Amino acid sequence: MDAATKAAAPAVSFDTSPDRYKHWKLTVDGPVATLSMDVQEDGGLSPEYRLKLNSYDLGVDIELADAIQRLRFEHPEVHAVVVTSLKERIFCAGANIFMLRGSSHAWKVNFCKFTNETRLAIEDASAHSGIKFLAALNGICAGGGYELALACDEIFLVDDGNSAVSLPETPLLGVLPGTGGLTRVVDKRKVRRDLADVFGTVAEGVKGKRAVEWRLVDAVYPTSQFRDRVAARAKELAATSDRPSSGPGITLTPLAPQAGESGLTYSAVTLEIDRDKRVATLTVAGPEPGQPETVEGAQALGDRFWPLRAFRELDDVLLRLRANEPLIGTIVLKTSGDQDAMLAMDAWLLANLDHWLVRETVHFMKRTLKRMDLTSRSFFALIEPGSCFAGTLFELALAADRSYMLDNPDERNTIALSAMNNGPLTMSNGLTRLQTRFLAQPEVVDEVVARGEPFEPQDAFDAGLVSFAPDDIDWDDEVRLAIESRVALSPDALTGMEANLRFAGPETMETKIFGRLTAWQNWIFIRPNAVGPKGALTAYGSQSRPEFDFNRT
Amino acid sequence: MDAATKAAAPAVSFDTSPDRYKHWKLTVDGPVATLSMDVQEDGGLSPEYRLKLNSYDLGVDIELADAIQRLRFEHPEVHAVVVTSLKERIFCAGANIFMLRGSSHAWKVNFCKFTNETRLAIEDASAHSGIKFLAALNGICAGGGYELALACDEIFLVDDGNSAVSLPETPLLGVLPGTGGLTRVVDKRKVRRDLADVFGTVAEGVKGKRAVEWRLVDAVYPTSQFRDRVAARAKELAATSDRPSSGPGITLTPLAPQAGESGLTYSAVTLEIDRDKRVATLTVAGPEPGQPETVEGAQALGDRFWPLRAFRELDDVLLRLRANEPLIGTIVLKTSGDQDAMLAMDAWLLANLDHWLVRETVHFMKRTLKRMDLTSRSFFALIEPGSCFAGTLFELALAADRSYMLDNPDERNTIALSAMNNGPLTMSNGLTRLQTRFLAQPEVVDEVVARGEPFEPQDAFDAGLVSFAPDDIDWDDEVRLAIESRVALSPDALTGMEANLRFAGPETMETKIFGRLTAWQNWIFIRPNAVGPKGALTAYGSQSRPEFDFNRT
Repeated sequence: MDAATKAAAPAVSFDTSPDRYKHWKLTVDGPVATLSMDVQEDGGLSPEYRLKLNSYDLGVDIELADAIQRLRFEHPEVHAVVVTSLKERIFCAGANIFMLRGSSHAWKVNFCKFTNETRLAIEDASAHSGIKFLAALNGICAGGGYELALACDEIFLVDDGNSAVSLPETPLLGVLPGTGGLTRVVDKRKVRRDLADVFGTVAEGVKGKRAVEWRLVDAVYPTSQFRDRVAARAKELAATSDRPSSGPGITLTPLAPQAGESGLTYSAVTLEIDRDKRVATLTVAGPEPGQPETVEGAQALGDRFWPLRAFRELDDVLLRLRANEPLIGTIVLKTSGDQDAMLAMDAWLLANLDHWLVRETVHFMKRTLKRMDLTSRSFFALIEPGSCFAGTLFELALAADRSYMLDNPDERNTIALSAMNNGPLTMSNGLTRLQTRFLAQPEVVDEVVARGEPFEPQDAFDAGLVSFAPDDIDWDDEVRLAIESRVALSPDALTGMEANLRFAGPETMETKIFGRLTAWQNWIFIRPNAVGPKGALTAYGSQSRPEFDFNRT
Repeated sequence: MDAATKAAAPAVSFDTSPDRYKHWKLTVDGPVATLSMDVQEDGGLSPEYRLKLNSYDLGVDIELADAIQRLRFEHPEVHAVVVTSLKERIFCAGANIFMLRGSSHAWKVNFCKFTNETRLAIEDASAHSGIKFLAALNGICAGGGYELALACDEIFLVDDGNSAVSLPETPLLGVLPGTGGLTRVVDKRKVRRDLADVFGTVAEGVKGKRAVEWRLVDAVYPTSQFRDRVAARAKELAATSDRPSSGPGITLTPLAPQAGESGLTYSAVTLEIDRDKRVATLTVAGPEPGQPETVEGAQALGDRFWPLRAFRELDDVLLRLRANEPLIGTIVLKTSGDQDAMLAMDAWLLANLDHWLVRETVHFMKRTLKRMDLTSRSFFALIEPGSCFAGTLFELALAADRSYMLDNPDERNTIALSAMNNGPLTMSNGLTRLQTRFLAQPEVVDEVVARGEPFEPQDAFDAGLVSFAPDDIDWDDEVRLAIESRVALSPDALTGMEANLRFAGPETMETKIFGRLTAWQNWIFIRPNAVGPKGALTAYGSQSRPEFDFNRT
């Protein structure tokens, strides 16, 4: 069994909850929560490696992502989070190297992508949700452990003569600190590039006063003061929040889709897989008419309220597609439901954005759509009669690589925009999908949003909102041929092409992480100097030293 | 002989001139020059492929780069350039596929980098030098041919029912249009992403009215009108220029360094290679005292005037290092000369920037320093007594990954800044190297430039201008150990790390091309789906069809 099969075989579930965490302890004490890493050595996703020294695999990160998400929805009273460890003198040793070594290239890439998204979710909570994060590094903090700290607002490091922060990937493993590390060091913490160069090449890292001088951490404190300083600073950070002073939040219950050989069925989302064609159809059902009119009513529905429910399901199905269905390269996007109900929901969400729960929900919708932008599969939206490509759900068509809208004079088929298309659902580049789409004609964005009535197929085509509007005679052939020719192309070239075409316009730290850093890491992850028989990742922990081909590329 | 040896074996020279061009014809007619591609099939750098249909290899691109450079320096009277072809119904078929297939990974990467730099030099001439470029596509224009057109200000395409623009890399070869194509389509020409997606997957491309509607070209004209329309538009573009209405320019004479087994010796630049250690020392000598006081005096010196001479030599040595010395991974940067003369030269350049020749010279210095930023080798600057790290030459220390300054109380050793460090010599990210360095403390930039006197080692260190300032007792060991540990690291990880640390701050189209697009292309260039025995690049032109591993990564 090769590494690819070995690592990809067990279907990964992203469903967990604090009572089932193996690796993290989440405690809430008034406005301050503490998220403590205590990785269970034999609790990895595979028995083939042991998670020593608080090193992590995807399972550890799934719990972290879950905890961040729950803090946002279940604990509105939490205003600051201390991220620390329960292991003596060890914060986190980073991604488990034996796991990386035993994983396929695709698994490594996917693992890093999810880890990056989780780190960005931390920064999203800080920027938009009034939850500040303090990394309390109580011991050694290496590689991915330091990259996790970098995602926090502030970093405190214990000054015990031993504990250091480090990015030993390049000197020890011949790879990059590829989950945001290099980018955040120079772009977020603005460490001088020459110091970052030194830091990135010394395996032992930097500690004490020098770590502060180099801007790698915000403060160091002796062991005797560390706990108090962390607690005091966490309180100060919590005091800056605009979140409610008390709960209740809403509970995120398990999603539990019906899973079959040919797909997954949730309440608002279905995925039908055609394995022979390597195509899946992903359908999202819009809200029913008659949604709650008050926030209290929505809150009473908890996670059954459509926006949260549908997007949790969409998020989950994207993650499962990535992890469990690598051969399904093309996703046909469909929607169903009542467009007026969707537009009413959009209006309601925007009218109630000052409520913490609505704000959380809309930011989660934004993050889920970003997850789609960053999914290395081709998305084609099919807009047919009975579909619900309106407002928020029209973002699916805008996120798609292409959209086809049936123009049959005998059947009404429309799309509609709302103010949700013109603001809150930004992409990683900081622009809305409409802004990115109309980079050449920015004035069109306001025009199409202001229209206030649905677009018939020809209008939608003329306005540039859909790629093609074939008539009923051409529809079947045109769509079929488009999909058939897509699935025949090199999946690698498509991944690269999509990664370049989807993010026109400005770059942000976020797009830098997914574009520049990730792309270089992927390159290195497949080079013999890292993964060949004598590569650094292969040699690590064995008796042999790596042997490099020293040609510079 | 494997592909690496085969392709890398002959030392590449970047020296050429119009009378020696094999593949281009350069004609000047008043303010409009015409640069016509007419690739000689058997004139490739290697006899193993034929350059059919105006396809190109590095040799063709070296001539193009030379022509652009000469137009800037030798022909100030040229205000617009028509880029076209002398072959009937063929503009350019792009990079030669048989050349790509037979090349090593490193050669492909280096070839693409040089091609990218040449395209950016065209855009630099347009943005800063008053030379507009009109691509006159008289026939099929595919892949790298269209990418060349994208680098021009405007694109005219003949409407003959047959001629199309296309990016067939993904559908035909399983790779990307990786020399700026994907980036310029959506970021420069702002083609809608869904249309770009279609365009990037149809091998036959887009022609006629649709090519204009999709923003892929600016205009199409029937064959009968094409030549006249191009000529008329070229005249209009020329009329927008602020260049002189007549010459003379200055002649760029051959550089002709003395080449030996252990290095290259130019007039102001020397390269000494230590092959056992895989380290080279690159030394640049500053200007002598007593430089010309008037622009006329400088112009009379022609290409012997120090700024142009030293930077032409530096540019050439960087290109030769990249192409001919892949094993030399670490470059020690040194300077020599009179700091006051260097600072006087900087003041003179800035005082005369409104003269076309001085403007050209400073932009060329800028481009050469960018070439260093983009060179995938580690640069360590050593600042020792007698060195000339002042003003413009201090940019070498700022471009370096690290700098070491000897602090010996018995020997005076200083660095100095000038206004040249605070404006004209921008990096690809649009910032100066000082701005990039002090991203965390932008106010420091003006402070250090305003100082007006040299920095002693400890002052330079305290100001953050050098990485380390060891004393004479530590110097030898510290420098030696730094170099020894650098050369031992994985060259791939270093390339990736440096590419991420060198460009903090904003991203531009230029950094997107070198970061995002290039990094993805490099990844694809080493994947079996492209270069494996059944990969698309391997299968192209043979009887067999490619076979893909359809797992999406």
